[in-house]
Amino acid sequence: MPRIAYFGPEGTFTEQATRAFLGDPPSDTRPAPPDSALRPVETIAAALDAVRAGDAEAACVPVENSVEGSVAATLDALVAGDPLVAVAETVLPIRFTVLVRPGATPADIRTVATHPHAAAQVRGWLAEHLPSAAVLPSSSTAAAAVGVLAGEFDAAVTAPAAAERYPLAVLAADVADVRDAVTRFLLVRRPGPLPARTGADRTSVAAVTADRIGALSEVLTVLAGHGINMTRIESRPTRNRLGEYRFFVDFEGHVADERVGDAMAALRRRCTEVRFLGSFPRADQAPNTVVPTTSDEDFLAARRWLTSVREGREA
Amino acid sequence: MPRIAYFGPEGTFTEQATRAFLGDPPSDTRPAPPDSALRPVETIAAALDAVRAGDAEAACVPVENSVEGSVAATLDALVAGDPLVAVAETVLPIRFTVLVRPGATPADIRTVATHPHAAAQVRGWLAEHLPSAAVLPSSSTAAAAVGVLAGEFDAAVTAPAAAERYPLAVLAADVADVRDAVTRFLLVRRPGPLPARTGADRTSVAAVTADRIGALSEVLTVLAGHGINMTRIESRPTRNRLGEYRFFVDFEGHVADERVGDAMAALRRRCTEVRFLGSFPRADQAPNTVVPTTSDEDFLAARRWLTSVREGREA
Repeated sequence: MPRIAYFGPEGTFTEQATRAFLGDPPSDTRPAPPDSALRPVETIAAALDAVRAGDAEAACVPVENSVEGSVAATLDALVAGDPLVAVAETVLPIRFTVLVRPGATPADIRTVATHPHAAAQVRGWLAEHLPSAAVLPSSSTAAAAVGVLAGEFDAAVTAPAAAERYPLAVLAADVADVRDAVTRFLLVRRPGPLPARTGADRTSVAAVTADRIGALSEVLTVLAGHGINMTRIESRPTRNRLGEYRFFVDFEGHVADERVGDAMAALRRRCTEVRFLGSFPRADQAPNTVVPTTSDEDFLAARRWLTSVREGREA
Repeated sequence: MPRIAYFGPEGTFTEQATRAFLGDPPSDTRPAPPDSALRPVETIAAALDAVRAGDAEAACVPVENSVEGSVAATLDALVAGDPLVAVAETVLPIRFTVLVRPGATPADIRTVATHPHAAAQVRGWLAEHLPSAAVLPSSSTAAAAVGVLAGEFDAAVTAPAAAERYPLAVLAADVADVRDAVTRFLLVRRPGPLPARTGADRTSVAAVTADRIGALSEVLTVLAGHGINMTRIESRPTRNRLGEYRFFVDFEGHVADERVGDAMAALRRRCTEVRFLGSFPRADQAPNTVVPTTSDEDFLAARRWLTSVREGREA
């Protein structure tokens, strides 16, 4: 069984993210994973379904890009079948490599191929460095590299991973009009033991609220009342009923934290549907904020007091 | 001056939306707009900047697709320069037309070109109807049609608008794996007189809240307290500061409604930045919900009473 199915093809940013989850780059104590551990699949939904069907242990999918926004296909596919949970995230800087056939110089480049999304992110660089080259679309950045190998195009704008996979020369690396563009990827598994909490965690949930004014505001008030800092929110129409929305919310903390657990149980009561999408260490390792009155000890002390009150030992 | 700049090229869904804003299809009393009224531009940001610079009266841009989600480029470009406001929306069903050279039959089709987004939405149809055709990427659905004309591809999956623009034959129309896929487009202008309220309006705002727990929850509580029904919410990181987010919120009602105006003023006090992105008639003409205690008369009566109290005439 391949360990990880990912949204392919090979040589893309998603393959790079998958290798990051597996512990690439290799070190003295950690060998590179064999290629058989990875399986590229054609769509995001297929990667997640491979995990649901037991054909892969885990799936690596993009969830959010700082330029393009959320990856709707991932959000929709996460809630469209049996439950899956994210157990890790990784954030890749989106900087491109320009590949050419060995020996080619900028003057030789009449055509540059890449995926339209990538083209949009290197438009300025191409205008400056290869102003007379025609930009042609490819179905993926990796397909552009294959096209250069086959002599169809003179250059390809690709993920750095493609430079290792194909016998092409690097004309330029670290190419990006927006310097800080990043994509966040999730490693997703079937439900099972959760990653240990680290104090620098993120929790992700999908919730459908009752279709009435203020329902979402109540949910967010629950999170705020528990001192929980949201890091992302997005509504997506459900396919069930016009005017019904599902909210994808990411927030700081781990479901094992008392404040998060308490808030999640309150969400469960208030929402018509809640799906836990995972608690996992934040890629940036930024420690979670714990505001006064919301530490584990605060919650446990309050519960001890309540027990005493109910048993007539305190008041 | 062209009347409308749109995210081109010609023959795409965005051109179709632009024509819808101009009153296409023509009727006995309403002639089709001359082509000089429309100007395709290369990016969403360029369409909005043409309006800011006074090079176009208005811009037509996609804002949300039911399959792909929000169009992040539009959200970001709306807040990245001088203020602009949406004055109308239109919703197009995303159904594709398959164009071939006149006389061609399915057996002749060895290659089908289209934009990768479109390819993702007709994958099932192609597998069923043209199983042996190779699917090739193009930079837009319209570019695919041009490629068929030039003999580069045998078929193109395009917007219906392309069938009118290019001398090609329709092999199939109304093609879509997801039957109810729609894209919502906005018509955007420089600030000026607002569209009249119709009682079936939508208002769009972008707000940056203070970077503290509960700030967004307070904003939504204000909307809920005014009986305002949200129809969309999405966070986008601001480029200014790590952990700072901008929320794009759409809700029912017109800024001329008392409840909406009162809530907007409260938002203005609470947020570090609020940008009004427009009040305009909903494309679906669904009447706005007005819950008891939030009608214009309720607000006006309360204000009259407050004036009386302050003047010592009532208590």
